[in-house]
Amino acid sequence: MTRYPAVPGHEVVGKVMEVGSDVTKIRAGDNVGVGYIVGCCRTCEACKLEKEQYCNKKVFTYGDVDTNGEPTQGGFAGAMVVDQKFVVKIPEGMVLEQAAPLFCAGVTIYSPLNQFKLKQSRLRGGIIGLGGVGHMGVKIAKAMEHHVTVISSSDKKRVEALEHLGADECLVSSDTTRMEEAADSFDYIIDTVPAFHPLECYLSLFKVDGKLILLGAIKEPLQFLNPCSCLASLLFLDNYSYDYITCIGKSPHTSPDVCGNPTLMERRKTITGSFIGSMKETEEMLEFCKEKGLFSMIEVIKMDYINKALHRLEKNDVKYRFVVDVAGSELEPC
Amino acid sequence: MTRYPAVPGHEVVGKVMEVGSDVTKIRAGDNVGVGYIVGCCRTCEACKLEKEQYCNKKVFTYGDVDTNGEPTQGGFAGAMVVDQKFVVKIPEGMVLEQAAPLFCAGVTIYSPLNQFKLKQSRLRGGIIGLGGVGHMGVKIAKAMEHHVTVISSSDKKRVEALEHLGADECLVSSDTTRMEEAADSFDYIIDTVPAFHPLECYLSLFKVDGKLILLGAIKEPLQFLNPCSCLASLLFLDNYSYDYITCIGKSPHTSPDVCGNPTLMERRKTITGSFIGSMKETEEMLEFCKEKGLFSMIEVIKMDYINKALHRLEKNDVKYRFVVDVAGSELEPC
Repeated sequence: MTRYPAVPGHEVVGKVMEVGSDVTKIRAGDNVGVGYIVGCCRTCEACKLEKEQYCNKKVFTYGDVDTNGEPTQGGFAGAMVVDQKFVVKIPEGMVLEQAAPLFCAGVTIYSPLNQFKLKQSRLRGGIIGLGGVGHMGVKIAKAMEHHVTVISSSDKKRVEALEHLGADECLVSSDTTRMEEAADSFDYIIDTVPAFHPLECYLSLFKVDGKLILLGAIKEPLQFLNPCSCLASLLFLDNYSYDYITCIGKSPHTSPDVCGNPTLMERRKTITGSFIGSMKETEEMLEFCKEKGLFSMIEVIKMDYINKALHRLEKNDVKYRFVVDVAGSELEPC
Repeated sequence: MTRYPAVPGHEVVGKVMEVGSDVTKIRAGDNVGVGYIVGCCRTCEACKLEKEQYCNKKVFTYGDVDTNGEPTQGGFAGAMVVDQKFVVKIPEGMVLEQAAPLFCAGVTIYSPLNQFKLKQSRLRGGIIGLGGVGHMGVKIAKAMEHHVTVISSSDKKRVEALEHLGADECLVSSDTTRMEEAADSFDYIIDTVPAFHPLECYLSLFKVDGKLILLGAIKEPLQFLNPCSCLASLLFLDNYSYDYITCIGKSPHTSPDVCGNPTLMERRKTITGSFIGSMKETEEMLEFCKEKGLFSMIEVIKMDYINKALHRLEKNDVKYRFVVDVAGSELEPC
């Protein structure tokens, strides 16, 4: 249930109109952005370790309750007031509209790559889902000089992945031959899909220490059940032998009906999740994007297009984010 | 199906009788041990990075096929021949019998603590399962100056955990009050139980970046389904809001029926597995155990007690490993 008055809008960019007397980080006239949170407790372990996005008392940019008890109101407004901690200066030369989605989609990709030590070049990464977050995944991973594969349930995304976004490969998860060929080759896979889909078929794709990083919020429980759409997930069970010595030659294994923890144990694979990024990572990510000439791909709309945009969003009909030009829209006075 | 002739026995200790001309690491007369593997390919990425326990061509100490095509034969024998790479010298002053289980159980605990950067003091760790591996978990974690909680499905292990093994706390997973109090307090939990049990109830126990490390081989698929025995697993969904702004005050959340990836995302929790340890880690672990005066708790038996020991093993009636005194047993000639 939405609490009214409600003003949505995260990934907010604009020009600073005025600053308080204690503000040192930014000045009036600066181009700045705000992401998905505008508050945190500043005293818990997460806050002290500069991972305030995991603070239990974080305040979301809109639809949340601010420390003063009022609902937080987002970027679909002529102006907003934000604590300097949650405001980041946009580097010179960046187009504001194209920088906007970096404040959530961009840092949502950058943060796990940073956290899980996956920024060095020559890694092999996979991206599942080509929405606002996924398309930044391809772009940021390519800029880190990774070999990037878009993994999809169908071949429809091939041209888009390779020609539009610059991915190196497109892997269709139902193509068992290609999935088997791709086994044991990924350092990480970032899954951005916010809807239920089988996960077990990806586990065989990882090298030792490979990481499945879940970014898409899914209501269904986390599970790794067979039958899955590809048999390759079982590959590494073939070499499995632990606590049971019931083997014939090289193939002792547990039941082939499962993709359970033997798959994790046998190759020290990790399943984890990540949620936006810290303010420090947001700053780093913006500098990285500036240095590499990266930006998000967007469609700028006016406020009176919002309802149509929402219908198009439901059909995934946007490449890859709508950005609302609030300043350029005729707004009714509050 | 066991392949015959079969000689079981891993976690092997003994005195070196003879060494080949290229052997530099050990000398005749040294006290040494052998763990769960005696071979690897030496050329794959895992081998090159000194994590040969994850080599796809690793050779198990017994019940496997050696590079010469013959079955490998383990430690239940008067003598065995092993490549020096897989032999580790036992530090001076260690009792051989008590060192034996360190070569598998000990390094199985040490390796993930090392790999996942969990060796520093003052961490809060949990151990599930008090068998051969679990009891070394308590001892090694305590020696690293962690606050160690034994987590159990019943209160039966309390005295054993606290008084016998020196754990700081015992937490019963069905005690919802205590589980809720313990929420958000663990840096890691090492699960050594090799049988199916619900895992979702542990997820709420983790701090940000907490790690659930699975060591027990379970045939059932990995899943995090409700209803689970403790409601605390849902605690962190209360503060959950991503892609959905359908909140009332501070409690936007997805369905309370699940313990899925929101739990991982919201606190960057990790589910992973680990398998024995590398030879380098085995050496390090032995030095660590020597320095800290650590050893495994064992019951030494003669060979003629084996069948009785196996029956007792089935009933978990051993504290915490049987060690077979092969040299002291009357063996029939091969």
